[in-house]
Amino acid sequence: MPVSPRPRGRVSLVGAGPGDPALLTRRAASRLRAADLVLFDALVDERLLTLAARAQRFFVGKRAGRHALTQDEINNIMIRAAQRGRRVVRLKGGDPFVFGRGGEEAQALQAAGVPFEVVPGVSSVLAGPALAGIPVTQRGVAGAVLVTTGHDESAFAAQVGQLSPGGVTLVVAMGHARRAALAGVLRAAGWPTDTPAAVVASASSPRQYVWRGTIERLEQGEGGLDGDSPALLVVGQVAALDLTSAPINRVARRRDDRRGIRPRSTEPDALRSPVVRRGER
Amino acid sequence: MPVSPRPRGRVSLVGAGPGDPALLTRRAASRLRAADLVLFDALVDERLLTLAARAQRFFVGKRAGRHALTQDEINNIMIRAAQRGRRVVRLKGGDPFVFGRGGEEAQALQAAGVPFEVVPGVSSVLAGPALAGIPVTQRGVAGAVLVTTGHDESAFAAQVGQLSPGGVTLVVAMGHARRAALAGVLRAAGWPTDTPAAVVASASSPRQYVWRGTIERLEQGEGGLDGDSPALLVVGQVAALDLTSAPINRVARRRDDRRGIRPRSTEPDALRSPVVRRGER
Repeated sequence: MPVSPRPRGRVSLVGAGPGDPALLTRRAASRLRAADLVLFDALVDERLLTLAARAQRFFVGKRAGRHALTQDEINNIMIRAAQRGRRVVRLKGGDPFVFGRGGEEAQALQAAGVPFEVVPGVSSVLAGPALAGIPVTQRGVAGAVLVTTGHDESAFAAQVGQLSPGGVTLVVAMGHARRAALAGVLRAAGWPTDTPAAVVASASSPRQYVWRGTIERLEQGEGGLDGDSPALLVVGQVAALDLTSAPINRVARRRDDRRGIRPRSTEPDALRSPVVRRGER
Repeated sequence: MPVSPRPRGRVSLVGAGPGDPALLTRRAASRLRAADLVLFDALVDERLLTLAARAQRFFVGKRAGRHALTQDEINNIMIRAAQRGRRVVRLKGGDPFVFGRGGEEAQALQAAGVPFEVVPGVSSVLAGPALAGIPVTQRGVAGAVLVTTGHDESAFAAQVGQLSPGGVTLVVAMGHARRAALAGVLRAAGWPTDTPAAVVASASSPRQYVWRGTIERLEQGEGGLDGDSPALLVVGQVAALDLTSAPINRVARRRDDRRGIRPRSTEPDALRSPVVRRGER
């Protein structure tokens, strides 16, 4: 067989999934194992980095009070490393093309003529609700899903303000801190205040936390969290569903509701996992 | 260590991802390897089933001209097998809770008291566009995504009719055959007829096919496919993007455009994959 003339250097824009290393795709795990350089951001669960044993690993995201690299700086590091023949993994929480600026990075790589690929990941915006027992679609209940962000209230209002309430599930990333204002936008747009709503935080991690309520209760500021874990808002009739395995998860959740606070991360995993997990990492 | 009193029988509702076995999650692969029984449907790529070497494998989906099992029959098979101590994998294309009735199956399992879990998968509705070089979100272009189906034109009209055009990417599953009518709904709702649109078929398989055009060209019936491969419609400014690695994919796509037909599946994989894929299966 002829030797490939293709240079070895390349960039893989890899989706890390919601956090649990078992929800990484097989291609993502393979790329991490082969990587020379891994650039990761704040939404990536650091358990994943142990796979990239032979790589240099750099945190390039934003963290409270710390100066982050600019997008141009990240792009330049990727381009230069690939041009020097290195296998670069740009590891992004969830899926690289669902928020998170993966598209801009792909454009920069394309413009520089650097070989790259996108490795789709399990997107947190869909998997987070699923792991909380909420199917974002359900026959006769929700036939569509609108996925958006909540950091810009006026953009949110423009996106959802004209959407007819009912039949559509709304999943909002980066909106937890503004949940009261966003719930107000929905009420003003005609969504009934008793529409079910949920907060799903740290999905797939041992600290996964689920709050269930309504738009009205969100507007009153309920559904709070300790710390600044990534959290999703889910709004629509499906948010009232709780399709988790009986009876184990139910016990754990009832206790959370009673305490009204986030469960400690030391809670035994057996209380949350209905199925034994072994031999998969 | 005490022996667990938990019965071994259980059901895993597993997302199969878009098709390529490398895009299966590690948990999904683990569940397939351990399965006694696998029930799969038409959207599942049969390459995945080779992982379930020790399982009985049954096709339970719909196929042209063939009677399918009813949802109740599928539920009953899963429940009875789990109650007999079998490890059941219900393998669904993409993600089990994004269309595909996974929520109904979870409800039936929950009602029967059968231990179950959901293993989220890489959803085809987001990964399909990504593999075609289309980021469903992009800063300054699209800040939200509406995911829906196109098999019911009036439901589609209700969902998108009030959505303001611009800023939102529309991904439509099960709508390819009705693409002209759906494009007409969008035009009637005020979407500019030159809004970019794409058809993405068999994403992640060797037969992956991408057509790019506009709402107007979709309404004229362009973007057709041979056969009945699963295909997505993507509508919005991002559908004009082509963030695939230069120059290899570009050559392959240009040839497709010229021929105006679907590429043969015998086309060498090297023409479509910018990056060597090995050691990941």
